[in-house]
Amino acid sequence: MSPAKIDQLYPSRTRRGVTPATRFATLIGDYGTSDFVMKRGGRLPEVTIAYESWGSLSPNYDNAILIFTGLSPTAHAASNAENPEPGWWEFMIGPGKAIDTDRFYVICVNSLGGCFGSTGPESINPATGKSYGTDFPEVTIEDMAKAGHHLLHELGIDHLHAVVGPSMGGMTALAYALQYPDECDYLISISAATRALPFTIAMRSLQREIIRCDPNWKEGHYHSDEEPLSGMLLARKLGLVSYRAAEEWHQRFDRARVTKERRQGKPFEIEFEVESYLDYNANKFVGNFDANSYLYMSRAMDWFDVADHGGSVNAGLAKIHVNKALIIGVTTDILFPIEQQQEIAEGLIKAGRNVEFVSIDSINGHDAFLVDREHFSPVIADFFSQS
Amino acid sequence: MSPAKIDQLYPSRTRRGVTPATRFATLIGDYGTSDFVMKRGGRLPEVTIAYESWGSLSPNYDNAILIFTGLSPTAHAASNAENPEPGWWEFMIGPGKAIDTDRFYVICVNSLGGCFGSTGPESINPATGKSYGTDFPEVTIEDMAKAGHHLLHELGIDHLHAVVGPSMGGMTALAYALQYPDECDYLISISAATRALPFTIAMRSLQREIIRCDPNWKEGHYHSDEEPLSGMLLARKLGLVSYRAAEEWHQRFDRARVTKERRQGKPFEIEFEVESYLDYNANKFVGNFDANSYLYMSRAMDWFDVADHGGSVNAGLAKIHVNKALIIGVTTDILFPIEQQQEIAEGLIKAGRNVEFVSIDSINGHDAFLVDREHFSPVIADFFSQS
Repeated sequence: MSPAKIDQLYPSRTRRGVTPATRFATLIGDYGTSDFVMKRGGRLPEVTIAYESWGSLSPNYDNAILIFTGLSPTAHAASNAENPEPGWWEFMIGPGKAIDTDRFYVICVNSLGGCFGSTGPESINPATGKSYGTDFPEVTIEDMAKAGHHLLHELGIDHLHAVVGPSMGGMTALAYALQYPDECDYLISISAATRALPFTIAMRSLQREIIRCDPNWKEGHYHSDEEPLSGMLLARKLGLVSYRAAEEWHQRFDRARVTKERRQGKPFEIEFEVESYLDYNANKFVGNFDANSYLYMSRAMDWFDVADHGGSVNAGLAKIHVNKALIIGVTTDILFPIEQQQEIAEGLIKAGRNVEFVSIDSINGHDAFLVDREHFSPVIADFFSQS
Repeated sequence: MSPAKIDQLYPSRTRRGVTPATRFATLIGDYGTSDFVMKRGGRLPEVTIAYESWGSLSPNYDNAILIFTGLSPTAHAASNAENPEPGWWEFMIGPGKAIDTDRFYVICVNSLGGCFGSTGPESINPATGKSYGTDFPEVTIEDMAKAGHHLLHELGIDHLHAVVGPSMGGMTALAYALQYPDECDYLISISAATRALPFTIAMRSLQREIIRCDPNWKEGHYHSDEEPLSGMLLARKLGLVSYRAAEEWHQRFDRARVTKERRQGKPFEIEFEVESYLDYNANKFVGNFDANSYLYMSRAMDWFDVADHGGSVNAGLAKIHVNKALIIGVTTDILFPIEQQQEIAEGLIKAGRNVEFVSIDSINGHDAFLVDREHFSPVIADFFSQS
């Protein structure tokens, strides 16, 4: 796909997260049919999926690993020649690393519905010439998995060595293995869920409502220079609260105050370091992420339910036919708690699958896979060394 | 104090939570001095404290129990002749109940800074004739305790049988016992803390920021008919998320959906029962609570630190000289976790106090004291039967 074509599809401001390393595949319809048909009935005349890759595809196309991301990251999972910036999983992917690019051809996609190069609410609706906004069809985790599958089809890869994903990406990896059971040898699901618990739904629903209450949201039809930034800032802060564990913050910040120089004397301003941490990190995110993408992907996680595939969670999990699955959870995760990882592992074992279940005792909560190299790298390296 | 006087102090809309059962005491200055001087330097020329009472004061004034509330409730802790509506602690207070009004004279106060009859940001600033708003001086938990102490002074009570409080009220009870060590025989602290943890600060800070981001907040100088209701609604929802435990919602709602009749077809509207629960309960609160009071009291909880009283938490706790303390916590409380209750108990034991520590294995999280009669009533009844 030529850069010119990309410019037509995305107005300049929407090429967030796109670098010289980003590749694009345009998927027209369902393997040759006219539209990309979505789980809840929506249709897209054209789908572009942005991705990055590392390593080389083997002559017989049998060494591909597909990675789905959580809600926030781009497809830039690791540095590469075209983009030497560290990726969001830099410690995990590379030559000699746990996901070894000397051995595997690794692909990471920006999910359908996202805003980092793949088709999403910010993309131009060919029918109107404007961004879809909330006219974008309802996206599900299954659609994200299907778009990843389409991408592989375009690349000529009809079988994966492994599908891998953390958080939302773990749900997508489950959906992938479920929908294409004979096209994948190994599965790694990290801090995911077969379906969200009500506490998690509440946390996400509240983030969505905060964004929707921003007067700039305008029912999803905001202009690019007037995005609902204050809603996004607050929603991201709430997200961050749910991604980390109370004990980590206790050890890290306790009740430390920001220095007087960093205060402006306004009523109810930031005073504790933990508030400053949230503000700093949320501000890094806001302006780089489309609010409607956030809404669509957040809701997709609430909707996802393995039980939709066969009537019960275990019936759904039984559709997964990988040689072996690695299911990882973190004991301090409040968003996708360890019991939910156990549920995935037990369901797969019940269905006769070969499963390795690893409960990681990390202080980093749901975000552990992003930061706790020490715990995560050996587990994944070990899994692939036996694959 | 005459009703006419109250009308002068509070514009009609601000008499929230005030019923025929509400009594008022006007406290002029610090026991006869000119102003009510606050911990962080602020001064109030006049303080009114709203309270309710149950039972009869004994001839020698030795049977009084003072109850401080959490952030949200009024002084109407239980029904009485003037207001037969059930109170927020109806199962706990009454003839023959755990806090037995046949034996005790029970007083519950609306905290200083609140909006249910006591002086707070919504009260009229005598200097301007308008509500204080954010010109109200900074309120601390210690000031709330002091205002309660002033009230007892006005009532001629110089010694308490017990001071009791859950949540913010537990912090206030600790502050009371700390500041007036020889004026109180027993202490009951429920789901409180010697000082807030960063996770708890983050949750509260975010609620405050949500309110402040409501365009109607106007730096705290909003008009009575244009309050920041949408910010309050969202903040309350976030509060509710932190007051309950994930497992309770899992058992209660799981992934149940609201019926189609209750949906309006708007994008991203309520779909899961847990969202509907939050919406229903938050809406009951909003409009009945002053946004600035919420901000002031929420911040007071973040500021509270027993270590301010002697240099360390244990030095502070050692100032408490009650005959016996009952420290209650709930295993599923994520806001004031059980470890914090243990810290209070251990600090008091270290100081040589007689302490009963009760860890309640309730599914109701921080709110358990409001709803889990079965676990709470016997523990408190037993404590008082030995007092």
